[in-house]
Amino acid sequence: MKQRTDNYEKGLELLNKLHGGQAGEQLVNNLKDVCPDFVDMTVEWAMQGIMARPGLDLLTREFLLIASCTTLGHAVPQLKAHIDAALKLGATKQQVVEVILQMTFYAGGAAVSNALAYTKEVFQTHAQ
Amino acid sequence: MKQRTDNYEKGLELLNKLHGGQAGEQLVNNLKDVCPDFVDMTVEWAMQGIMARPGLDLLTREFLLIASCTTLGHAVPQLKAHIDAALKLGATKQQVVEVILQMTFYAGGAAVSNALAYTKEVFQTHAQ
Amino acid sequence: MKQRTDNYEKGLELLNKLHGGQAGEQLVNNLKDVCPDFVDMTVEWAMQGIMARPGLDLLTREFLLIASCTTLGHAVPQLKAHIDAALKLGATKQQVVEVILQMTFYAGGAAVSNALAYTKEVFQTHAQ
Amino acid sequence: MKQRTDNYEKGLELLNKLHGGQAGEQLVNNLKDVCPDFVDMTVEWAMQGIMARPGLDLLTREFLLIASCTTLGHAVPQLKAHIDAALKLGATKQQVVEVILQMTFYAGGAAVSNALAYTKEVFQTHAQ
Amino acid sequence: MKQRTDNYEKGLELLNKLHGGQAGEQLVNNLKDVCPDFVDMTVEWAMQGIMARPGLDLLTREFLLIASCTTLGHAVPQLKAHIDAALKLGATKQQVVEVILQMTFYAGGAAVSNALAYTKEVFQTHAQ
Amino acid sequence: MKQRTDNYEKGLELLNKLHGGQAGEQLVNNLKDVCPDFVDMTVEWAMQGIMARPGLDLLTREFLLIASCTTLGHAVPQLKAHIDAALKLGATKQQVVEVILQMTFYAGGAAVSNALAYTKEVFQTHAQ
Repeated sequence: MKQRTDNYEKGLELLNKLHGGQAGEQLVNNLKDVCPDFVDMTVEWAMQGIMARPGLDLLTREFLLIASCTTLGHAVPQLKAHIDAALKLGATKQQVVEVILQMTFYAGGAAVSNALAYTKEVFQTHAQ
Repeated sequence: MKQRTDNYEKGLELLNKLHGGQAGEQLVNNLKDVCPDFVDMTVEWAMQGIMARPGLDLLTREFLLIASCTTLGHAVPQLKAHIDAALKLGATKQQVVEVILQMTFYAGGAAVSNALAYTKEVFQTHAQ
Repeated sequence: MKQRTDNYEKGLELLNKLHGGQAGEQLVNNLKDVCPDFVDMTVEWAMQGIMARPGLDLLTREFLLIASCTTLGHAVPQLKAHIDAALKLGATKQQVVEVILQMTFYAGGAAVSNALAYTKEVFQTHAQ
Repeated sequence: MKQRTDNYEKGLELLNKLHGGQAGEQLVNNLKDVCPDFVDMTVEWAMQGIMARPGLDLLTREFLLIASCTTLGHAVPQLKAHIDAALKLGATKQQVVEVILQMTFYAGGAAVSNALAYTKEVFQTHAQ
Repeated sequence: MKQRTDNYEKGLELLNKLHGGQAGEQLVNNLKDVCPDFVDMTVEWAMQGIMARPGLDLLTREFLLIASCTTLGHAVPQLKAHIDAALKLGATKQQVVEVILQMTFYAGGAAVSNALAYTKEVFQTHAQ
Repeated sequence: MKQRTDNYEKGLELLNKLHGGQAGEQLVNNLKDVCPDFVDMTVEWAMQGIMARPGLDLLTREFLLIASCTTLGHAVPQLKAHIDAALKLGATKQQVVEVILQMTFYAGGAAVSNALAYTKEVFQTHAQ
């Protein structure tokens, strides 16, 4: 995995587009000395292998990841990173709130309540 | 909750639009004698209270529910019902598959693999 | 663990009291040749070690286990066994339904909907 | 949902009775500017729609929510709020501990261990 | 992903070694018409990208997957496939049972109880 | 459970061997005044009842617990305690990382990413 492939370069470009700011860099920095291969997996698999696929636009994909992180409950840094990415891609704050609210009958109200509290933190870093 | 409100009538209309076929009716029939109030909660809260809100279109909401059910892993009848509803609302089979595939790095490959197997079952009941 | 202790005898008595019928025996029979030690753990730890503790009555404990199984989503044979045990201990069907309904805002509506469907199956084996 | 209904007023009264102190207010304040509708859903659905139903007393309902939050593992602010509410309703500390301990064989020992650590934090704010 | 890479060929060889029998083929067949790309992801990422890495032997990796599937609770076809693969790699039935039993205090006894019941089914297809 | 049995003494010895340092003591201290019986259950059941069983070596058992905690997502203090115990038992840092990486396709990449971040914290307390 060490020789940089074309997939890696394209995946990295997408990672920077979506998570170029604080949240994404923090994720990568946290992991690069404990397990640099996992950064590669994120870039090649999660970004270029899945996120970059045709068939759904990037913002819909970010909404789906917000839904999944809200449902998992414990994926807090990822939830914040994907809320941030959705806003960067042009989502309104109201749309992000609706995505999380939609989880109420599935992930449960406790998961939604906590996700909304994290959402508030991310919103404070975005003017809009 | 027993007097039928306007919210109830509108919610029921939406339930029939989304789940009018086999899957939705089955859910309601399964529950109506063990707990009719839960059918009311589904109609008034999940349908009229959440699903009918402005801010996101119905198909995006169905995609989010497919993402959540895939992540939960055990919400099998609901996963099938929402795949069915997404197709009824005009989603292509490829879009539904992409929604589930997007969960690979969050819900994990086992959850995605099982969700795709259930997807196949629902697809067989839709011509397209 | 092989010499039968006093704890084991008392735990087995409690297991028979709570799950003496079909559901409990089935659980034990399923496991006794693949892992008899797990049956012992169930008897000594789950029954005599936890269930038999003072401080809460048996029916409240069964309600708590129904709540936990509903929340887990995948603990289906256990959910059925504890609904059956609650009814044996004198719970009304309405109380069991209320316990599960109480989970709606925490375990989510999908988990509650599925738990109610399993509840219906157990209710059909109880006259009341 | 914006016109205050009778359900809303009764639900708010119950919310204040159960969570009138620090934990409950904090939950509401966290959410009221990011999503005021979710506060309404909590008041009208979780409080007046479920918690206020007949068939189980309020303390049993709080115990069930403690069981569910312990099982979820990630619902930490909610776990603390419901432990606080149970004590306000007259539960002894020993009863709360028993409720959590009862989860050992279902939610697992790690979830119970963490829940007991949070319990300790809440207990320190109650004299008894 | 459609041109077959060297990674794909090596990953497929490993998939056949581990899951050559009924369980593995069934998984692949279930998915190949609904989403052939997911089969490729399984081969290239899960097999060649992770399973084939140095640092842990294949049997330890299978034990870890059995642990994870037991903890997830809903990953039933995967649990069976990995129990089957562990036995093919030379694990004794007692070792597989110990792996699952080790989960009792983490995944909980209900998850362990169900996993042991599935284990029994797989054991019946292996002479030993 | 209050009279100290031979099982208790042996279990305590094992607890000290595995978690003698900061993480283990902290777990015990957190719980001993809120629920001393849970410390006993940990010592007698989790340690002497499961961990000390024959059939798998201690390090393999620690790896399985790391896998389970990574999959649960919310069992953070336990994840750290078991990474620490694995290193004490002679595991290399690379082995611990491989155990967590093996979870990518099952627990999902978000759970793995967070587990690796916690791993880094524990590694900083071990020279190697």
